[in-house]
Amino acid sequence: MVFRHTSAAMPSELETAMESLIKVFHRYATNVGKERFALSRRQLKDLMENELSTFLQSQKDPAAVDKIMKDLDSNCDGHVDFEEFVSLVVGLSIACEHCYQNKMKMGKK
Amino acid sequence: MVFRHTSAAMPSELETAMESLIKVFHRYATNVGKERFALSRRQLKDLMENELSTFLQSQKDPAAVDKIMKDLDSNCDGHVDFEEFVSLVVGLSIACEHCYQNKMKMGKK
Repeated sequence: MVFRHTSAAMPSELETAMESLIKVFHRYATNVGKERFALSRRQLKDLMENELSTFLQSQKDPAAVDKIMKDLDSNCDGHVDFEEFVSLVVGLSIACEHCYQNKMKMGKK
Repeated sequence: MVFRHTSAAMPSELETAMESLIKVFHRYATNVGKERFALSRRQLKDLMENELSTFLQSQKDPAAVDKIMKDLDSNCDGHVDFEEFVSLVVGLSIACEHCYQNKMKMGKK
């Protein structure tokens, strides 16, 4: 468990969510040298097909994964490391939160 | 549920984690006008004490929440919106992922 708890308390929902980001990334990433873990294009595609299938299916563009890979790979080393991966999660979460807020507004009308 | 699923499939671990980020934020945030939801300093403190207690307890500085609030409130409106909140989650996740990698390396020695 990434978050060591001094007491016997269970990790919170937020800690569990952050732990999931790390575990999901490492489920697909491999060591690309110097003990650095990252996703190749193939691994990013596998991750998205398994973990973000709804989002991926909503992308009409068949080259969506390649474009996302290009966007994420900010240091252009042909791999996506955890920091680059988290920026995908941030972008999607922010987009979903806007939907969530709109749903709440609609719910009031 | 934030992620609508076309099939009867359950949300993935990553989708559940992103959904948690949104739900946790909205558990503490309130409408600060123009249907914008954000955390006051008090609400950020409540969120951190309940959801990031391990992290908060590790901060020796009694003014930790104020410093974090200042760091997060990038538009200086006295509140932390979802985008600003997610940057806290990113920072902590990246720090934890480095610990996670170090643990894996230690595990190999």
